[in-house]
Amino acid sequence: MARAIRDMTVRGAPAIGVTAAMGLALAAKQSRHTDIGRLLLDIKKAAEIMRATRPTAQNLFWALDRMLRKAGETAGQGRDIREALVAEAQLMADEDVEANHRIGSFGADLMEDGDTVLTHCNTGTMATVSFGTALGVIRTAFNQGKRIKVIATETRPRLQGARITTYETLSDKIPTTLIVDSAAGIAMSKGMVSKVIVGADRITRRVVINKVGTFMIALAAKRHDIPFYSAAPATTLDLGGQHSDVEIEERDPSEVTRIRGRQVAPVGVKVFNPAFDITPLDLVTAVITDKGVFSGEQIQNMPAP
Amino acid sequence: MARAIRDMTVRGAPAIGVTAAMGLALAAKQSRHTDIGRLLLDIKKAAEIMRATRPTAQNLFWALDRMLRKAGETAGQGRDIREALVAEAQLMADEDVEANHRIGSFGADLMEDGDTVLTHCNTGTMATVSFGTALGVIRTAFNQGKRIKVIATETRPRLQGARITTYETLSDKIPTTLIVDSAAGIAMSKGMVSKVIVGADRITRRVVINKVGTFMIALAAKRHDIPFYSAAPATTLDLGGQHSDVEIEERDPSEVTRIRGRQVAPVGVKVFNPAFDITPLDLVTAVITDKGVFSGEQIQNMPAP
Repeated sequence: MARAIRDMTVRGAPAIGVTAAMGLALAAKQSRHTDIGRLLLDIKKAAEIMRATRPTAQNLFWALDRMLRKAGETAGQGRDIREALVAEAQLMADEDVEANHRIGSFGADLMEDGDTVLTHCNTGTMATVSFGTALGVIRTAFNQGKRIKVIATETRPRLQGARITTYETLSDKIPTTLIVDSAAGIAMSKGMVSKVIVGADRITRRVVINKVGTFMIALAAKRHDIPFYSAAPATTLDLGGQHSDVEIEERDPSEVTRIRGRQVAPVGVKVFNPAFDITPLDLVTAVITDKGVFSGEQIQNMPAP
Repeated sequence: MARAIRDMTVRGAPAIGVTAAMGLALAAKQSRHTDIGRLLLDIKKAAEIMRATRPTAQNLFWALDRMLRKAGETAGQGRDIREALVAEAQLMADEDVEANHRIGSFGADLMEDGDTVLTHCNTGTMATVSFGTALGVIRTAFNQGKRIKVIATETRPRLQGARITTYETLSDKIPTTLIVDSAAGIAMSKGMVSKVIVGADRITRRVVINKVGTFMIALAAKRHDIPFYSAAPATTLDLGGQHSDVEIEERDPSEVTRIRGRQVAPVGVKVFNPAFDITPLDLVTAVITDKGVFSGEQIQNMPAP
């Protein structure tokens, strides 16, 4: 499971969180120890391996902490840890789907009939347990009968937009146009975009951390007075954290220099390949969560969890 | 020659201009007509074919008009049109190299020792007759002994940055880092960029039209107070034109959906693939030409040509 997260076989902050939880449940089941202390140690070891897979998505750390807390509580109560962790991971998966539907419902109220919504990266069924966050909002609005069109950015370097988002929206029969990431600005200049909605990998009191490119799209949206939304479960909020403390993951140069196995740059060229970037909340019209829709100011002033 | 321009075997506004001129010289040489009127008609027909290749780069139209004018003048003087057009195209090629060196010299004065210069697309030897515009500025500063580093954007969809710019800068031993286009924003947030310099395909009194993505990079530069320059020969200026009249070329969807022959998006997905975008001059610190360095305000108030 750790390898699946690291190599992005599983990607998308909510999917990563639930996958990590399932990984801990598996680790518990696979441990041969009957001694509770040793079983807990195996689970903690698995959690450390999981924790080291990717540094940025808040949901990963939230999920691991919740599972470890559950293991500790269950041990304290003398109940079956393995059974409890399997049930907890399954509960978290179910909760994710519910949260996405709530995000979709809150967000759909902000979408208008006739909107063309630009979205970045993939935030749908394949980034979550099911349904999606930003894409869940689009889905919900579309299913309500609003005539919504999508502009999907291809999302270099991993092309989640080109490969996954367009697949999901076209499967839903939502009219979709694919663009290179760089074309978001001119699409806005030409009046082709009425809303922007993206996901989030971590939201602090001051910033949204999301797939690299989000920040530049937010700047372009601001320039054109186009509403810019970030949609994510409340578990993505990191209200105790400073974004300056958040590690922005840098991934392998080959993600940039090789595309689907073909070399597209001189061998050995130096590469800077950040997976995420940082969008200040002053560029974000609102954050759409399963607990409701919040302005940047509201997020800044939320009570500590 | 028209096909080479259309399929981007030759690309880069200055290279396109000189190639078009050479195309007209070839058309004149290949015409079998001895009658001057018929020869001129062949040349005009070739010019129309050339004119229809790509709609945005100013240099193409400038070059064709100059060659047609030369043909007309030469005919009026009873001199050898073929010989005159070959000489004129060769002169334009030589002038391009000279202009690039002058651009380099003017621009290098703006580059400081220790600068890390972000550039977009390719503006070097392979976008011009030789040396380059924006890349010529970087080259000149580097050759003057200034310690300049380059951040090159890969430049989707055609990857001119990944394939060509890095090849040119690494050949010159200029330290180079490759990024996806979307990473320009976070590179700036992290303080990795001290200047931005790009080329131009057309400059009107109000905007710079350049490779798609330029506008979003300019917005990010503005947000971080990073100087943003556009470098181009004065022949790129279109002082009589309104940018609203300029056609922004849209190219084939397959440039986005296929990368080096590999399909990367669902077959048949709709694509918006503009080759250029429009950067208002309020985002441009200065335009560097072979005639000198000009602020947006100076360009706005230049006398009509």
